[in-house]
Amino acid sequence: MEIIEKSIVASIQMNCQLGEKNTNLKIARGLIEEAISQKARLIALPELFSTGYLVEPQDLVLAESIPGPTTNELMEISRKANVYIAGSIIEKGEARGTVYDTAFLIGPGGLIGTYRKIHLWQSENIRFARGNDYPVFSTPIGKIGMQICYEIGFPEGARILTLKGADIILFPSAFGAPRLYAWDIASRSRALENGSYIIASNRWGNEENIEFAGHSRIIAPNGDILAEALGKNEVLIAKVDLQEIEKQRNQIPYLRDLDRFHIAYEFNESLCLRKGCEKRQKAEKWGT
Amino acid sequence: MEIIEKSIVASIQMNCQLGEKNTNLKIARGLIEEAISQKARLIALPELFSTGYLVEPQDLVLAESIPGPTTNELMEISRKANVYIAGSIIEKGEARGTVYDTAFLIGPGGLIGTYRKIHLWQSENIRFARGNDYPVFSTPIGKIGMQICYEIGFPEGARILTLKGADIILFPSAFGAPRLYAWDIASRSRALENGSYIIASNRWGNEENIEFAGHSRIIAPNGDILAEALGKNEVLIAKVDLQEIEKQRNQIPYLRDLDRFHIAYEFNESLCLRKGCEKRQKAEKWGT
Repeated sequence: MEIIEKSIVASIQMNCQLGEKNTNLKIARGLIEEAISQKARLIALPELFSTGYLVEPQDLVLAESIPGPTTNELMEISRKANVYIAGSIIEKGEARGTVYDTAFLIGPGGLIGTYRKIHLWQSENIRFARGNDYPVFSTPIGKIGMQICYEIGFPEGARILTLKGADIILFPSAFGAPRLYAWDIASRSRALENGSYIIASNRWGNEENIEFAGHSRIIAPNGDILAEALGKNEVLIAKVDLQEIEKQRNQIPYLRDLDRFHIAYEFNESLCLRKGCEKRQKAEKWGT
Repeated sequence: MEIIEKSIVASIQMNCQLGEKNTNLKIARGLIEEAISQKARLIALPELFSTGYLVEPQDLVLAESIPGPTTNELMEISRKANVYIAGSIIEKGEARGTVYDTAFLIGPGGLIGTYRKIHLWQSENIRFARGNDYPVFSTPIGKIGMQICYEIGFPEGARILTLKGADIILFPSAFGAPRLYAWDIASRSRALENGSYIIASNRWGNEENIEFAGHSRIIAPNGDILAEALGKNEVLIAKVDLQEIEKQRNQIPYLRDLDRFHIAYEFNESLCLRKGCEKRQKAEKWGT
């Protein structure tokens, strides 16, 4: 795969009509076209962009397979315009009656991969089954990992993706306005501590008593905000330069210096403590 | 141990004279007395406050045991004023010829514990042996963990301490001015993602061609900066309220929702990949 060192990327911020897939897809298509006209090669949509967020009673009805109708339509755009498109929708699980909050990455050749949200926020626990894998996908634009919304606050997810090679981490989101302070700090920290690009595409608008935070952003590997949404439906554009990742990781070599052994040991221990296993056993397991 | 729900804490920012322990201890004593006069119960000094930072040729000569002359003198203050004092000095290792960059915590009853820096910055690798433990210490003010300087940029250290119960994480530092942007983002993110108080005590001033960043700060569990150094030698004061930790961890329950199992698995895998072990073996080890 030929790697393009410098690419234009886009983060789409949008409002969504609850349960109105056709309307939401139409809005998304318009914004995607705007991104394409600005030469974006990677275009990131918000979380559950096709349905809106608070659709609990209809989760099972609105869920789709991936690939399925919504992603097929986006794949058609990807193929025609030679671009990569990501976002999240409600995905039907393999087990009947289960649904996931799933991010997808599609490209000119079709579906590249999916990521199922692991860290579920509040009542998402009673809507969605939980993912269990942190995959990274190779594209000509760079290696891409995905986390969803609330997960921007967990440094471990972005770190694991980075250790697997991610250059760019996408955060399709429907992040609430009362926690904008966390969105602000966490999004920049995930970029800085990994030396990775972050593309965080948030929903804006209101659903019932939830106000979403907007403030979608594209962040450089040093934590600088390259572009941030100020308006409402908006297309953010920035340049991803893979050389900047190498420069930043050279300037502050967090990845080189990371104490992976003891971190694995301590996380293991934090699990073992709950199970009551003996320190001696753990030490044997880890060869220390 | 009786736990005090609300305590005054202090972060000391100071300049240091290279290799001049008596001078530096005198400056530290003056600032500690100022903190005590403001009713601080926990007082945090910068990294290598007793010697200054760039003393490589003299590391072995300046190194002390803990307890030893410097910490004994501080223990005397702790005992008399009924306060807790932390900082870092060059510590003699058990093996002759080895020294560590070691943070200490002392209280009215003497030495409580030490933490040896694990993530070493640049040429620290050829000065210091590397620590291998992430301890947490119980005090009436709360449970206290320590990380040193560069480690503020590694989310895993503060996370491990928090999973072990740390309420307050100290960062004695000699953080360089060119990376002030990282200090700013990382210090707030460590507080926010753990819902812990952060007390980051930095050196200011110059040594050879290094300029230190100052900007010592005390940070609330939601990432808000409660106090920040603006001047040079300075005592920052803030209130630690253990209830605020519980409120923040209830407001955004990162610790409750953390996917410890897969994180342990993935960190283990990142080590195993280097050793070439099989995925099957790892799965067996983790029982998945």
